[in-house]
Amino acid sequence: MEIKIMKNILDRNQNKADEVRNLLAEKKVKMVNIISSPGAGKTTLLERTCEALGGKIRIGIIEGDVTTDRDAQRLKKYDIPIVVINTEGGCHLDSHSISKVIGMFDLDTLDILFVENVGNLICPSVFDLGENFKLAVVSTAEGDDKPAKYPRLFSEAGAVVLNKTDLLPYTNFNVDAFIKDLSAINPRVPLFRISATKGDGLPDWIEWLEYQIKSSPAG
Amino acid sequence: MEIKIMKNILDRNQNKADEVRNLLAEKKVKMVNIISSPGAGKTTLLERTCEALGGKIRIGIIEGDVTTDRDAQRLKKYDIPIVVINTEGGCHLDSHSISKVIGMFDLDTLDILFVENVGNLICPSVFDLGENFKLAVVSTAEGDDKPAKYPRLFSEAGAVVLNKTDLLPYTNFNVDAFIKDLSAINPRVPLFRISATKGDGLPDWIEWLEYQIKSSPAG
Repeated sequence: MEIKIMKNILDRNQNKADEVRNLLAEKKVKMVNIISSPGAGKTTLLERTCEALGGKIRIGIIEGDVTTDRDAQRLKKYDIPIVVINTEGGCHLDSHSISKVIGMFDLDTLDILFVENVGNLICPSVFDLGENFKLAVVSTAEGDDKPAKYPRLFSEAGAVVLNKTDLLPYTNFNVDAFIKDLSAINPRVPLFRISATKGDGLPDWIEWLEYQIKSSPAG
Repeated sequence: MEIKIMKNILDRNQNKADEVRNLLAEKKVKMVNIISSPGAGKTTLLERTCEALGGKIRIGIIEGDVTTDRDAQRLKKYDIPIVVINTEGGCHLDSHSISKVIGMFDLDTLDILFVENVGNLICPSVFDLGENFKLAVVSTAEGDDKPAKYPRLFSEAGAVVLNKTDLLPYTNFNVDAFIKDLSAINPRVPLFRISATKGDGLPDWIEWLEYQIKSSPAG
């Protein structure tokens, strides 16, 4: 019974996600669905990405949070369009909530729309939002076992950021073990090793992202 | 419609949680429901707690994970009864899964049952498992904004562990801001500042835990 309910929810989500994807393709706007644990560094990565791409790439942001607009407050200094979705206890965004707010952006003036999902490695990975790709962000402080323990997200990710590399000397994170587990789940996924607070590794991420925006067909 | 389904799920969960709670009270076994983000240090905290309490307090552990038995593998060296619940994609434990496995323990030989919930700050906080109290674990690497952004868990917690204090010098975590937000949500909750890997702050936690086990009535 509950499995049937879940299937209905996912089917309805997929239909709406396809609508969002078609609209964005028509408008030539890319969408990135950013997923991580709470506090892995999604917002700080967005801050650095806005600083690096500002002026060259036209960015919009959808901020998903259980409650508060604290992440949006951190991002408003970049003078880019931001819409906050508070899920009021909900553990993930879905395509219906994206569809409701997407009309608040002038899509003709955007190149890329970042969606910062609710901080959660599990539920957001099941709900297609209409994105071009999911970006999984994981922090070195979380331990190297995350791909093995949360395989759904890492198998679906179009790119992975290993963030907080500046903390590597102070943790027992084993980069080789992390890469081995990740490769077993998603062998060709691009992996970027970044310290969003210190700036290490950002140029490779930015260059790859610009390439995705400019060279591949939308949708 | 979906709200009604959720209400039914939660009502059924509550009934079963009350059954579990009554059984544990009768057997004089305390249950702690440990909730945190992925990688905040629940398993390492359990390792240190088993080492400190072993021989004095009789411990059982239920390990909840989406997949794998990696956490249980880390704990089996303590020669205590451990049962693994794999949720197969599910984002939290519920009282029905606890009820199904609790018969696998000899409750007459236990003082305390730790339940390591699935790594997730959101969904586990809604489902009563029949515990005596919820323990919220948050790592300094996650940032000081977690109580404000995930208020449900922190308002329900019977104790909070701020873990990875050894990383404080390398992060922008503001302890005063964290305590201010936590106090606004849950003014009297005991807070333990711990480095589970280094051992800092553990004696206060262990002493408080022993006091909970020995002095307060079960249930």
